[in-house]
Amino acid sequence: MARKPPALRPGDVVGVVAPSAVIERGYLEAGVGALAAMGYRVKVSAHALDRAGIMAGTDAVRAAELNAFFADSEVRAIVGARGGYGAGRLLPLIDFAAIARTPKIFLGFSDATFLLAALVERAGIIAFHGPMVAMDFARGLSPRSSAHLRRLLSGAPGGFELEAATALRPGAATGELIGGCLSVVVSTLGTPYAPRFAGRILFLEDTGEKAYRVDRMLVQLRQSGALRGVAGIVFGAIRPVGGDEVERMRIAEFVAEQTRDLDCPVLFGIEAGHGTENLALPLGAPVRLEAGGRRLICDETAVS
Amino acid sequence: MARKPPALRPGDVVGVVAPSAVIERGYLEAGVGALAAMGYRVKVSAHALDRAGIMAGTDAVRAAELNAFFADSEVRAIVGARGGYGAGRLLPLIDFAAIARTPKIFLGFSDATFLLAALVERAGIIAFHGPMVAMDFARGLSPRSSAHLRRLLSGAPGGFELEAATALRPGAATGELIGGCLSVVVSTLGTPYAPRFAGRILFLEDTGEKAYRVDRMLVQLRQSGALRGVAGIVFGAIRPVGGDEVERMRIAEFVAEQTRDLDCPVLFGIEAGHGTENLALPLGAPVRLEAGGRRLICDETAVS
Repeated sequence: MARKPPALRPGDVVGVVAPSAVIERGYLEAGVGALAAMGYRVKVSAHALDRAGIMAGTDAVRAAELNAFFADSEVRAIVGARGGYGAGRLLPLIDFAAIARTPKIFLGFSDATFLLAALVERAGIIAFHGPMVAMDFARGLSPRSSAHLRRLLSGAPGGFELEAATALRPGAATGELIGGCLSVVVSTLGTPYAPRFAGRILFLEDTGEKAYRVDRMLVQLRQSGALRGVAGIVFGAIRPVGGDEVERMRIAEFVAEQTRDLDCPVLFGIEAGHGTENLALPLGAPVRLEAGGRRLICDETAVS
Repeated sequence: MARKPPALRPGDVVGVVAPSAVIERGYLEAGVGALAAMGYRVKVSAHALDRAGIMAGTDAVRAAELNAFFADSEVRAIVGARGGYGAGRLLPLIDFAAIARTPKIFLGFSDATFLLAALVERAGIIAFHGPMVAMDFARGLSPRSSAHLRRLLSGAPGGFELEAATALRPGAATGELIGGCLSVVVSTLGTPYAPRFAGRILFLEDTGEKAYRVDRMLVQLRQSGALRGVAGIVFGAIRPVGGDEVERMRIAEFVAEQTRDLDCPVLFGIEAGHGTENLALPLGAPVRLEAGGRRLICDETAVS
């Protein structure tokens, strides 16, 4: 069972790191302003605006800044600046043993799925799939996504329920929530950073993929045994490259086809991940899927 | 050691199947004409022009036609019509045990890398990475690619040598050749269809990929242990999406970076795969890599 990190309260220090792609100063500043407006103090890592090719500095520096914020007792929670690409390269350089000793909220998605998965598996802590600083926060969180995030990270009692657009397979299941960006989850297969799938609830979302690639990734998850092993699956949106409508329909057909014979509940279309709403999810926390009511339900607080 | 299939001689029947994407009749006919002009009789599978979404018919029919051609004693060699997408979905439906009892030349690349890998691993036969009917043959094979293919499949004595553009890492190594399209090889990781990498020579090529995706795939191969386990690596071209020059440079940098610390010979740029020349390679056959002379060398005939 993944451990709960301490809750985030107003006035706490939130650390902002850049584990993936290069960050534009304007977006970073807008996002930091939005975090400050939510009542947090913000500490941006010293090298967040570094550039090394398409990434925000060298692997060594990006990993060191992430390790340093986990070790920094002033920093209460860590939020990634943006995804893009580069977090997977850091995995061998992250001190998961140290993180396991001092659990802390980490929040991110997209390419940061690499970090979320490893924090759950290797550090054994709940990690948060949700808005990022120079992306969602910079554009402005919706009141709903903002309120949901604040409740989740502050440990407000009562848990939450998210409604999916469609139930693809019937049934109900419970398990620890894992997953994130489909292409990133698939990029961990065959490596020591792949999540354990058996008995868990797998969340998958993505954007900018062609339909054939989505199918290829789902086939790989099937052939790896992951889709037969999970207790349930909940999809966010899987947005096609360029928003193409034919591709969107093909993706929906492939998702239905690759899950049709599964003996577990499968929901499609919760508002988490790439999209207008990005409702935060506690990976590693126990959740319930109820296909009947099209609900993903989290009864417990995810922080301590 | 993978077994050699029987040689292909002038007048033999070549079977053409469509295991992946939909086939255009014009390209198929042009490619069949080119095969006939090389002196082979051609038998096209009955459902090669079927359509089921983006694929050339249902999985069941595509797999059945491939199994049938392997079982058909008149068919001496099988060539895929084109890649695209869909061959990986057939793997659980292919009768590899039957194929192991009656080895036969299979020729294809790109998406057909799924089949090549499984023929080597599961049927234990040499399988040929090279030109496809409604692609390369339809456009017209270069005299060099055509002569190379004919010699390889007919078992002409003397083997062959291919020159690479660059040696990225020094050394010499021998091993069975495996690999093919990078994105397809990576799509087998974590599944029962992944090749065994240890002690082998890994060939990788691709097209239409963004640089960050190429790096992500190489990182997955590294983190899976494959790149530390192989005896050597030889790249074809890794062509960027849209032929973008900045992306091409980034890809070259990522390939160099991800192989820099490997203790095995690494060559880049043999003329095999997506490109103007598509020199055929016998996967499963023993080959030598010599970084000094930038050579991939195959001393033995690959057919019996």
